[in-house]
Amino acid sequence: MAPSAGCEHAPMHLPVLSTASFTNASVLHGPRDLRLERRIIEEPGLGELQVLIKTTGICGSDVSYYKKFANGDLCACMPLSLGHESSGIVVAIGPQVSGFSIGDRVALEVGVACGQCTICRKGRYNLCKKMRFRSSAKSVPHYQGTLQERINHPAIWCHKLPDNISFDAAALLEPLSVGIHAVNRASPAPGSTALVLGAGTVGLLTAVMARQAGCTHVTITDVDQGRVDYAISKGFATHGYVVPRPLHISSSSSSILPNSNSASGSSTPSDGIATPLSTLSFRSSLDSAKALAAEMLALTQNHVLDHDDEDIGVDVTFECTGKEVCMHTALYATRPGGKVIMVGMGTPIQTLPLSVAHLREIDILGVFRYANTYATGIRMLCDQKGSGAGLTFPSLDDMVTHRFKGLENAKGAFELASRTMDDEGNLVVKVVIEA
Amino acid sequence: MAPSAGCEHAPMHLPVLSTASFTNASVLHGPRDLRLERRIIEEPGLGELQVLIKTTGICGSDVSYYKKFANGDLCACMPLSLGHESSGIVVAIGPQVSGFSIGDRVALEVGVACGQCTICRKGRYNLCKKMRFRSSAKSVPHYQGTLQERINHPAIWCHKLPDNISFDAAALLEPLSVGIHAVNRASPAPGSTALVLGAGTVGLLTAVMARQAGCTHVTITDVDQGRVDYAISKGFATHGYVVPRPLHISSSSSSILPNSNSASGSSTPSDGIATPLSTLSFRSSLDSAKALAAEMLALTQNHVLDHDDEDIGVDVTFECTGKEVCMHTALYATRPGGKVIMVGMGTPIQTLPLSVAHLREIDILGVFRYANTYATGIRMLCDQKGSGAGLTFPSLDDMVTHRFKGLENAKGAFELASRTMDDEGNLVVKVVIEA
Amino acid sequence: MAPSAGCEHAPMHLPVLSTASFTNASVLHGPRDLRLERRIIEEPGLGELQVLIKTTGICGSDVSYYKKFANGDLCACMPLSLGHESSGIVVAIGPQVSGFSIGDRVALEVGVACGQCTICRKGRYNLCKKMRFRSSAKSVPHYQGTLQERINHPAIWCHKLPDNISFDAAALLEPLSVGIHAVNRASPAPGSTALVLGAGTVGLLTAVMARQAGCTHVTITDVDQGRVDYAISKGFATHGYVVPRPLHISSSSSSILPNSNSASGSSTPSDGIATPLSTLSFRSSLDSAKALAAEMLALTQNHVLDHDDEDIGVDVTFECTGKEVCMHTALYATRPGGKVIMVGMGTPIQTLPLSVAHLREIDILGVFRYANTYATGIRMLCDQKGSGAGLTFPSLDDMVTHRFKGLENAKGAFELASRTMDDEGNLVVKVVIEA
Amino acid sequence: MAPSAGCEHAPMHLPVLSTASFTNASVLHGPRDLRLERRIIEEPGLGELQVLIKTTGICGSDVSYYKKFANGDLCACMPLSLGHESSGIVVAIGPQVSGFSIGDRVALEVGVACGQCTICRKGRYNLCKKMRFRSSAKSVPHYQGTLQERINHPAIWCHKLPDNISFDAAALLEPLSVGIHAVNRASPAPGSTALVLGAGTVGLLTAVMARQAGCTHVTITDVDQGRVDYAISKGFATHGYVVPRPLHISSSSSSILPNSNSASGSSTPSDGIATPLSTLSFRSSLDSAKALAAEMLALTQNHVLDHDDEDIGVDVTFECTGKEVCMHTALYATRPGGKVIMVGMGTPIQTLPLSVAHLREIDILGVFRYANTYATGIRMLCDQKGSGAGLTFPSLDDMVTHRFKGLENAKGAFELASRTMDDEGNLVVKVVIEA
Repeated sequence: MAPSAGCEHAPMHLPVLSTASFTNASVLHGPRDLRLERRIIEEPGLGELQVLIKTTGICGSDVSYYKKFANGDLCACMPLSLGHESSGIVVAIGPQVSGFSIGDRVALEVGVACGQCTICRKGRYNLCKKMRFRSSAKSVPHYQGTLQERINHPAIWCHKLPDNISFDAAALLEPLSVGIHAVNRASPAPGSTALVLGAGTVGLLTAVMARQAGCTHVTITDVDQGRVDYAISKGFATHGYVVPRPLHISSSSSSILPNSNSASGSSTPSDGIATPLSTLSFRSSLDSAKALAAEMLALTQNHVLDHDDEDIGVDVTFECTGKEVCMHTALYATRPGGKVIMVGMGTPIQTLPLSVAHLREIDILGVFRYANTYATGIRMLCDQKGSGAGLTFPSLDDMVTHRFKGLENAKGAFELASRTMDDEGNLVVKVVIEA
Repeated sequence: MAPSAGCEHAPMHLPVLSTASFTNASVLHGPRDLRLERRIIEEPGLGELQVLIKTTGICGSDVSYYKKFANGDLCACMPLSLGHESSGIVVAIGPQVSGFSIGDRVALEVGVACGQCTICRKGRYNLCKKMRFRSSAKSVPHYQGTLQERINHPAIWCHKLPDNISFDAAALLEPLSVGIHAVNRASPAPGSTALVLGAGTVGLLTAVMARQAGCTHVTITDVDQGRVDYAISKGFATHGYVVPRPLHISSSSSSILPNSNSASGSSTPSDGIATPLSTLSFRSSLDSAKALAAEMLALTQNHVLDHDDEDIGVDVTFECTGKEVCMHTALYATRPGGKVIMVGMGTPIQTLPLSVAHLREIDILGVFRYANTYATGIRMLCDQKGSGAGLTFPSLDDMVTHRFKGLENAKGAFELASRTMDDEGNLVVKVVIEA
Repeated sequence: MAPSAGCEHAPMHLPVLSTASFTNASVLHGPRDLRLERRIIEEPGLGELQVLIKTTGICGSDVSYYKKFANGDLCACMPLSLGHESSGIVVAIGPQVSGFSIGDRVALEVGVACGQCTICRKGRYNLCKKMRFRSSAKSVPHYQGTLQERINHPAIWCHKLPDNISFDAAALLEPLSVGIHAVNRASPAPGSTALVLGAGTVGLLTAVMARQAGCTHVTITDVDQGRVDYAISKGFATHGYVVPRPLHISSSSSSILPNSNSASGSSTPSDGIATPLSTLSFRSSLDSAKALAAEMLALTQNHVLDHDDEDIGVDVTFECTGKEVCMHTALYATRPGGKVIMVGMGTPIQTLPLSVAHLREIDILGVFRYANTYATGIRMLCDQKGSGAGLTFPSLDDMVTHRFKGLENAKGAFELASRTMDDEGNLVVKVVIEA
Repeated sequence: MAPSAGCEHAPMHLPVLSTASFTNASVLHGPRDLRLERRIIEEPGLGELQVLIKTTGICGSDVSYYKKFANGDLCACMPLSLGHESSGIVVAIGPQVSGFSIGDRVALEVGVACGQCTICRKGRYNLCKKMRFRSSAKSVPHYQGTLQERINHPAIWCHKLPDNISFDAAALLEPLSVGIHAVNRASPAPGSTALVLGAGTVGLLTAVMARQAGCTHVTITDVDQGRVDYAISKGFATHGYVVPRPLHISSSSSSILPNSNSASGSSTPSDGIATPLSTLSFRSSLDSAKALAAEMLALTQNHVLDHDDEDIGVDVTFECTGKEVCMHTALYATRPGGKVIMVGMGTPIQTLPLSVAHLREIDILGVFRYANTYATGIRMLCDQKGSGAGLTFPSLDDMVTHRFKGLENAKGAFELASRTMDDEGNLVVKVVIEA
């Protein structure tokens, strides 16, 4: 895990070296201030590849930066290229790189861990304190995102793609990685039941990974009927539940929003604390969450199999919205001894009926990005095509509902990605920018 | 887990009590000495149900008892009804049973653990020392099998069936349980690769469970071309490999036999030790196993994804034949840090290249029957029908290739179950006896 | 796991049967309304032992019932004998019990699970929905506690004691079980570091179990200097930290109270929700918790070993107070990838900086009572005496700081158990009532 | 995890660069052909430290190379410096190293993994295919051992030592790491019981780690009375059993040899297969192993606690001899559902009563060296000194029974290390060579 050499945020006025060239980059300078610029790009350094970016998907955290020049607590303090769901083609190879050829198609794992600290050596590199993650403002200077023509990236964080995985699907390996990691953290035994709160990209991909892991019932919920219908019709989940908005609004100021955030970033209310409620209305909000959970469970209840002498609930709930009210629902919907996986980032400070988890030994596990997921994701995708037998994986290409060509059209992509429906009334699932 | 009351091997000459009645039973008195007899059956005792048996599948261990009145080290010492893959209908309900009604369709879990010892309380009841298992000669008096018209069975070991699971499929929940338990022991992360040695009933059902658990590549192997073809065409596995017999015979006296034994019983060579080989020929046998493993791995090798700088091998190998040579192949075919699951019982004493496991930290885990698998199995089966989306489970009904009606035809069933092909040249997968 | 036969709360006016006799019982009829009564006791039923109670320890939940006739949400609705930390002598043996003799010394595991439901069969019987737990008002009719002369108890929930474990120590196997279960849930690798918040009985016993599990640094904290000193001087922990009260009071209305509650019961503020704070003061409270965590960590920081490029924090924090502010401290004090174990029950609804756990993948795991711990506890205690080598376990007898003789003195015991210091200024750790 | 730069086996006739200097090295050229030589040593490269070696312990694999210029299957093909249990002082610091100062005392982790392959990124770097391990002939050119005056070593594989850990103790962190890894693989719950076969360095250190992990009974066995006495008197184990030699010799040609090998290397019979036995004598050998296991178990049997209705056996057996007959004993001595950890390397091909593991679901897990153990080991050692409370760790300094000063005396050290008793009849535990 060699450190990426070179300065990512390249100074603009350096004399042009013979080994450097120019590349176009979409650069955010402030809220909605997106500019197309020319940047110098060095030749790939030790252990690096130069990758021509083909597709970059727009994530919720990208949209947040685009709108506010910030994402939750993280404020950008210098120009920042966005984009971290990416794939491309190897166009140059740095020294001491083996196993790659010019022309190789690759998916980019854009979080570069140090590879040397205790937690990296133990295999949980997503928690590396020195992690630099492209398009995030966390490390300074910011590690620039993939909305650039070409970038230099450490070869060990580039994953070769078989021919039958498209660049679009490969870009979606990033959010799929969140789903893979979430399910790895949950490690449900085959035959388990799962509930997924939130049917955005991450919710969909988490649901489908739960199915792949052998969960027989995967119920997905959202306030948006279109998203739930999409999830069921495309086979991401086995059951769907549309959360009624009025019930929802009356019970709490939070909501199961359609734009569930990925674990790669977070979008946070400005004060970071859910709107305070009086004790009384909070109790009533909990009762609503409990009732909601019961309704979701009823969908998959089997009167033959489920004994009334046992506490009901799913084995695992994946909370993909980051909303407090959804955490409440998650806790009530999970069986004693089950697990709640926090996937979607959101309200940093939440008021929870903690005893529901405590007394029933429901494990609450967080998911922060992912580690060791790309090989799995690639195998998942490429395997599905050739196999004549049974198991299917929904097409990730189909998830890309809207495509924009060229970095110069990035603005349109960001504007659309912040909506759930386009002007024609079609569902917006994933917006990508293609080269 | 109340002990089953009453004497299972009922004396023949008791005066008929008003609470008792007669039931027909197929009883084995010695090698191939199968008789149809009338037995007294008491009313169901405390915590028991009386179940009218509808289907019993024939297992390899049943065939062994039928032929030798023994199974491996276990010799029957009194008349024994065979059969432990069973389903039926509740016809009477004993005291202190709740949750059941007359007419309920049930699958029988025929191993009755004590429920009170340390290992039962820790949830691994399959290892209970006091376990009584129907149709096995291990406990004395033997716990009689299900080839009887009716039996009394503890209600907590009867599992209610939804309407869409047939009696035949329900009987196959028993071998499916072995597959579920094997995969639970392996707990492969989604996206793992698996190898299954042996394509008998247990091998097939283990393979399909590995797929359900998210293994993207499941290669199944057997010496019998028909079985491998069956596995692939029906979707039990993604890749198949037919072990060439000549190679095989020349390398060792053991073999990947078509009749892989289930974990419920074992069929053992008389001395229990694999034929001794000279050091030289043993080395050569190991070399053959290594070459065989390499060929199996080559099937699923992906030249894009697999780096030559890493040790290759599958994440998990399920050894379902009980043959020493297959354990060799299993060890060579598994990646460093992977797992070999011993499923099929067989040669009790084996000579292994143990350092292959030791130096590469390959875990060797045994599977003895199953625990806590029936609810999973039922969910697996009933779920598949209603779901319009993606995941499929091969039809267990289709696995029943041959049906015999009536206990009086049990002999024919046993004779056929010991073959791999019927008189018409059709594959014999599972033979059942229906009421 | 046969159900305990008979009515625990025996009617008072039944004709005396030849098989029944009388026993004295300390019975709570309302807040502080403790009466000594005669009860009929039947002969031990199927699978039961009759046990002459020798020692019962007073737990925080007992004190809560004593004061309020309620414990958290649970309100007693009929007379209730308290006490669940108990040991005694077998004085009569019911039918179908094996392995016990009159005169056997036993510790009582007073939670009787059904043994038949899914979760019991999976080994997590502490989560059994049908669990009846002595001295708790949860099941109705209440399962009567051990502050009785004699009780009938299922033999499988009685644990034989070797001679070198006293009745007092044996009674403390109950809170020790909570500590064992907490550490089993945490499963720290040897060489881990731990923090224990709260130095009451459960905190002390959890700390010592963490040490037994190989945690090299175990820091225990409390607001009470005496308790922290006790913990260190007796070897329950390696480091101690006294939480300064003013800091503490200013930061939040909650506190690290000296009376940490056991996982067997809970003591809750009447509305169950921590006092609401304005957003501003809550933020400041979080800052205080963060600063407190940093001070606790500094105690064991090793400037040679700890790298400043890594997030610091302990591997596991055991929260044994049930206080919201302590959960905050726990979250801040734990390293990325670590665990927070909720042991002490308390405020059911808590406001937490949840993103601290989420983004750093800190697992939050609850502990509800215990399962499969008594054999471990007995081995822990009896082993320590004979071994000439190294490992030591603090004397549980020494933890009993105050003894009351006779059920008629129960009132005094409860009054003292609600204090942290006796009239002479001596620390109150554990109060027991001996026969 | 940057690759160590530079050529380890430096050519002898290079022109002396200003940045290079000379260092003395003990170099093995063939069986017992040990020479003291001058080697060129470059300045430490990128990410490297130059370490002045203070202590190197002699391991069984070193002795094997010394005697045969080979270790098991591995034959040296060029001159080789031995030694991999080492500590020293930082004397020079290469570029891009942070966190170290000249004069820092360090323990060396001498296995350098690639840090980039799949298995490294998953945290199991001991299984890295590109691992180079000092003093081993596995990689070519061989990675030279630490019996040199000074070496350059990657900084991330150097572990800083607190003052209270001596250089001798620090050298023993290497075999202690094997014990830590073995116990991590076993992950015994506190209160478990353990059996350790073989009381050599690794057996002793595995036993003490089992105790640290909370195993209440740790029985250690050996054929050498002196070693068993040492283990008990120094507190490495709680119980000891001396294997009677005659019984032993009659039962098998293998033996529980006093020189148990570490997991870092292996010493193998030339043909690698245990002497073939007739079926009859093999059966009798198994019976002896079974009887031996029963005797070992009887030592710690507790007639109060152990129920005769349960299978007996320890929770974990650590096999530290590498002998086939000890694997037999291990399998018979372990309880159903327990674990056998293969620690000691030895006979690569073994004949085992595999069904004993299979039918009782005893996991067989191998241990190859270690990963992520040094921080734990250092915490274990340095913690013991300061703590006033309870837990003790036997002095590793005391394990060093014989010290040789200077590389020129290496020969004497190797000769003595191959014996179990010195000329004065004193036990030889660990021989070190000090600078």
